[in-house]
Amino acid sequence: MNPRHDPRLKAFASDNYAGVHPEILQAIVTANGGHQISYGDDVYTAAMQEVFKRHFGEQAQAWPVFNGTAANVVSLRSMTAPWEAVICAETAHINTDEGGAPEVAGGIKLLPVPTPDGKLTPALIDRQAWGFGDVHRAQPKVVSISNTTELGTVYTPDEIAAICAHAHERGLRVHLDGSRVTNAAAALDVPLRALTTDAGVDVLSFGGTKIGLLYGEAVVVLDPEAASGVDYIRKTYMQLSSKMRFVSAQFEALLSGDLWLRSARHANAMGRRLAEAVRGIPGVEVPRAVEANAVFAVLPKDVADRLRKRFRFYTWNEATGEVRWMCAFDTTEEDVDAFAAALAEEMAAAG
Amino acid sequence: MNPRHDPRLKAFASDNYAGVHPEILQAIVTANGGHQISYGDDVYTAAMQEVFKRHFGEQAQAWPVFNGTAANVVSLRSMTAPWEAVICAETAHINTDEGGAPEVAGGIKLLPVPTPDGKLTPALIDRQAWGFGDVHRAQPKVVSISNTTELGTVYTPDEIAAICAHAHERGLRVHLDGSRVTNAAAALDVPLRALTTDAGVDVLSFGGTKIGLLYGEAVVVLDPEAASGVDYIRKTYMQLSSKMRFVSAQFEALLSGDLWLRSARHANAMGRRLAEAVRGIPGVEVPRAVEANAVFAVLPKDVADRLRKRFRFYTWNEATGEVRWMCAFDTTEEDVDAFAAALAEEMAAAG
Amino acid sequence: MNPRHDPRLKAFASDNYAGVHPEILQAIVTANGGHQISYGDDVYTAAMQEVFKRHFGEQAQAWPVFNGTAANVVSLRSMTAPWEAVICAETAHINTDEGGAPEVAGGIKLLPVPTPDGKLTPALIDRQAWGFGDVHRAQPKVVSISNTTELGTVYTPDEIAAICAHAHERGLRVHLDGSRVTNAAAALDVPLRALTTDAGVDVLSFGGTKIGLLYGEAVVVLDPEAASGVDYIRKTYMQLSSKMRFVSAQFEALLSGDLWLRSARHANAMGRRLAEAVRGIPGVEVPRAVEANAVFAVLPKDVADRLRKRFRFYTWNEATGEVRWMCAFDTTEEDVDAFAAALAEEMAAAG
Amino acid sequence: MNPRHDPRLKAFASDNYAGVHPEILQAIVTANGGHQISYGDDVYTAAMQEVFKRHFGEQAQAWPVFNGTAANVVSLRSMTAPWEAVICAETAHINTDEGGAPEVAGGIKLLPVPTPDGKLTPALIDRQAWGFGDVHRAQPKVVSISNTTELGTVYTPDEIAAICAHAHERGLRVHLDGSRVTNAAAALDVPLRALTTDAGVDVLSFGGTKIGLLYGEAVVVLDPEAASGVDYIRKTYMQLSSKMRFVSAQFEALLSGDLWLRSARHANAMGRRLAEAVRGIPGVEVPRAVEANAVFAVLPKDVADRLRKRFRFYTWNEATGEVRWMCAFDTTEEDVDAFAAALAEEMAAAG
Repeated sequence: MNPRHDPRLKAFASDNYAGVHPEILQAIVTANGGHQISYGDDVYTAAMQEVFKRHFGEQAQAWPVFNGTAANVVSLRSMTAPWEAVICAETAHINTDEGGAPEVAGGIKLLPVPTPDGKLTPALIDRQAWGFGDVHRAQPKVVSISNTTELGTVYTPDEIAAICAHAHERGLRVHLDGSRVTNAAAALDVPLRALTTDAGVDVLSFGGTKIGLLYGEAVVVLDPEAASGVDYIRKTYMQLSSKMRFVSAQFEALLSGDLWLRSARHANAMGRRLAEAVRGIPGVEVPRAVEANAVFAVLPKDVADRLRKRFRFYTWNEATGEVRWMCAFDTTEEDVDAFAAALAEEMAAAG
Repeated sequence: MNPRHDPRLKAFASDNYAGVHPEILQAIVTANGGHQISYGDDVYTAAMQEVFKRHFGEQAQAWPVFNGTAANVVSLRSMTAPWEAVICAETAHINTDEGGAPEVAGGIKLLPVPTPDGKLTPALIDRQAWGFGDVHRAQPKVVSISNTTELGTVYTPDEIAAICAHAHERGLRVHLDGSRVTNAAAALDVPLRALTTDAGVDVLSFGGTKIGLLYGEAVVVLDPEAASGVDYIRKTYMQLSSKMRFVSAQFEALLSGDLWLRSARHANAMGRRLAEAVRGIPGVEVPRAVEANAVFAVLPKDVADRLRKRFRFYTWNEATGEVRWMCAFDTTEEDVDAFAAALAEEMAAAG
Repeated sequence: MNPRHDPRLKAFASDNYAGVHPEILQAIVTANGGHQISYGDDVYTAAMQEVFKRHFGEQAQAWPVFNGTAANVVSLRSMTAPWEAVICAETAHINTDEGGAPEVAGGIKLLPVPTPDGKLTPALIDRQAWGFGDVHRAQPKVVSISNTTELGTVYTPDEIAAICAHAHERGLRVHLDGSRVTNAAAALDVPLRALTTDAGVDVLSFGGTKIGLLYGEAVVVLDPEAASGVDYIRKTYMQLSSKMRFVSAQFEALLSGDLWLRSARHANAMGRRLAEAVRGIPGVEVPRAVEANAVFAVLPKDVADRLRKRFRFYTWNEATGEVRWMCAFDTTEEDVDAFAAALAEEMAAAG
Repeated sequence: MNPRHDPRLKAFASDNYAGVHPEILQAIVTANGGHQISYGDDVYTAAMQEVFKRHFGEQAQAWPVFNGTAANVVSLRSMTAPWEAVICAETAHINTDEGGAPEVAGGIKLLPVPTPDGKLTPALIDRQAWGFGDVHRAQPKVVSISNTTELGTVYTPDEIAAICAHAHERGLRVHLDGSRVTNAAAALDVPLRALTTDAGVDVLSFGGTKIGLLYGEAVVVLDPEAASGVDYIRKTYMQLSSKMRFVSAQFEALLSGDLWLRSARHANAMGRRLAEAVRGIPGVEVPRAVEANAVFAVLPKDVADRLRKRFRFYTWNEATGEVRWMCAFDTTEEDVDAFAAALAEEMAAAG
């Protein structure tokens, strides 16, 4: 069987355009054959739990789910009573890119805060953290942050610790949307738990798909007091995998050695390489800090349109002409260089 | 890497204890490498749509989702306004085995009807198909049937056609929970469309996982007028896969040739073999028709308990001691014979 | 201003066809004028709380809501986590007559049980009270009973105590839909708390409208451990009255003296009078015990149709021709006698 | 029976601190007695429909509900599919003061926009009116505006017409939260339909409680194509009144003559009188236009605290010390003058 597509072609649209890392795929193949108890009572899921505990502490417990939207909604629902609300950055994925899933499927009100760089701070949290005990106000209960953020920035351990301390003082819990938390840890060269458990995060959406899994994210409860009913919420929210051994085997392959770190470091390095390359092209502006695997750029619309015919990517802001380029675990130096060369060509042609 | 489990061991607990069919796994491997547009705008998903159309007609459109609960809830929600209700057999999986997902996540009221064999009929439907226009009554809008049923029985094309005609006359739509619809078609030796499109079914939950996929079910809309907003409902119900090429490639592998039929026929044959073998064992009763890959049996509780230490399976009814044995695509004749022999031994020991 | 209707005409359709008891209306008039803090922080609501405590015990707390559907849904939602379910009689109002509100607005799965007379028993509860801890099964958490029942029958204190003891042993809580609990208490000549607090009921929907209020029901939490978040649930479920002093003043007028008892006794007496009168009419069958203010009868359909042109009432069961007649606090002996005479005439004409 | 409170005391906290207008209460008294069909099939509700048609046009249809939160949630839910979202001002009552009811009970995502004065404009709407057809974005479907706004400002007919034209061009519908729409019409001296039907508004939450009803608001569908299922949504959202004749009789009393206009004009006049009086007090700032019955003021916190012991009112913004004073239909000139005098005293004492 030949593939229906040319596997040499890469895009700079999203890290989820990539496929499956070969080591992950091998783990699936190895876990195949014979019968295993379904719905998570299998040996692979038991092994996966141990791996998560090694990274996040003995108290951590992981619940695999199918995608990132689900990891976030199941996390938030398990952290809140039905009338409680979630403070987040206005640019948070849960607010802008999940089709309204937190509200529609979860019935959860979000309390968004504008930010300059996609990052909350204690002071920004306080813009929504008020009205406790007032039935007319949706009760703030959770602060949700994303690391890396949707703007490609990275929270440091200290920044997260400050947020968690501030939140906890007010009776709020902290959720981390870690769709790209491996990229964040790699960027800062810190262990995963420095950005999560050790900083005081209560519940983590741990991202697998963007770092090379076939599918699979995990709700990781770091403080068992912060969440309840995860088993039931996962089931009723349609996230209980029958053949769970396969998603668990993927997480084990990702996290038991350094695959997560190699992959994240590589994607981040490609992001830096891309940023450096395009910064040298006259007329292209890179307006945001490039801290991980995302590069934002402002370039003429006609150039973007022509370039997009050669490499797919997304416009971030129609009004300003800002575009976003993402590097994945499988983006190569040659891919980056070819893309930068193509951009230079199109810019020159536009001139 | 050695597997963590002995792939020679089989259970008779559920067809989702099985792993991935090798041809399906190969399709995943082939689809890997390079970049593909995420969220379904890839060439594999386009090819999958064509395969579904070949089976279900040109008007059919398929939306892959992650699991069977989701296929059912997304189907039903796309067929109903928020205040409309779903008539189903009391034993329907949506009523008994999805943790309340239709109600909890979907806000959908079910109107269950007791049945002798898990099958609805026009007369049974009418026990709940009334009160149209009365705001005090949840408005019946959909009849949901399962084929094969949760009791291992199979609806014929004529039976389904009668249900559909009856439902349509009353302004009701018909949903088929086809978690095992391949087993039903194989059992009757009819094409898939004979049990669905041609019989008048409006929306189908097409089951992939139990017939050998790694993961993946599909909402298949057979009458485009019967459903709306599936794109958005799938997204907000956390069922939109980013790397959709892989689930689409699996469906293509399953349905483009006869893999589905070979697998379903085999599982059914193993069910029959098992039924025949255990019917010959004194003291074991097989109280229900064995029409596909499920065998129900009544045996002494202590025998069941001892047998379960050798082969895992589930009790269906604690009160009566009825148990359920399922055969999968990978159940072998040797597995069946070993199981029947073990049962005979335990019965003899009990005597 | 003349009324738009003839206030001498009565129906036997429902106790909510009646208007407002004059003493209740006077309480509203008295509470009018000047300003009072809105949303329940007023002196009338404080007084109402004391009245509820006198009836139901010091630990009782009442939350007025607008109607009976709301009293039930707010009660049940405050007693359950999002994945927990409610066992009820198949004929329960929450299952049959609220348009699916528990499921649609509350996301609550009901687990209905067929009963001969609208009454649950410990044995009937056990038909649904199982599967604890199994994520595939909506988790039973509440038993909801109605007193009087939808079939006009009445639970005794002992029957309720047996249900509560049985439920509590299994970790279940008990909700009483007391839309007509005043009628039940009057029928048995027991205090309200004999049927509620003293019997072990955890949360009560206390009915006001059918016993003479303009509008208003109350969620009464009898065991504070059984419910949480009622303040917030009432608000988000659109049940927080701004001018709450008026609903509170009505409850005070109903419950501070014997108005509730006089009204309920009278309605029940009219029910008995009606039953006795129609039992004497050849061809009319009264198939159910008449224990409070509801009378069920079976009579020829054409007779029912002609009678309905003179007095409005509802058919209970189209198939059997059973009809339901309800007496209200304002039904008079003359009304009953005129109705019975009309029935006798129509039966004679049919003969 | 003496009232529990001193009816001479008034507050400036909210127009819902007031009681029932005597003409409204008389309408309730007149509608009492005898039986009327419940749930809206009564002669008072029929008459109320005619009155609404006289104000809003022949196509208008009104559905009474219990409170303002419900009018908004039922309106918005009837205008949207489950995955569709609502654009509103950040300060909109639906966003800030309903405890999250649109999201929690309705599952509706709001798309808030910051505004200088509580009023949306076409340009402000466009900050959220984008992403049509993108499943990752909650689909904008409704623009919801409040008139008067939560900041006491008033939209003119032209401003609303511009919003409606803009919205309709984009396939959006317009909802007007008319909790105080009578105050807005009185302030501009225009008919109610100039601000609603004639301006292109599709669905209106018509406010009754704040202008003198005992209870009751109405969902008024002005364009029948803009909403569906209102009957069922009202029921499942626990808003169907059994004794509906009484809420309908109130609306008839309010709207059949000029009671609404007299009451609104009076409340507005008291607002102006109050604004004029306090503007003359040194040290008190009135930072917003006073266009109807709300007056916002900035004054020293200790003054506000002392004044509040004499007249209850709310702080609008803790950070700036801004407070809100509301006048009601029953606020008298003496009340206003006494309040202004008290404020002057406290300011002087503070000096």
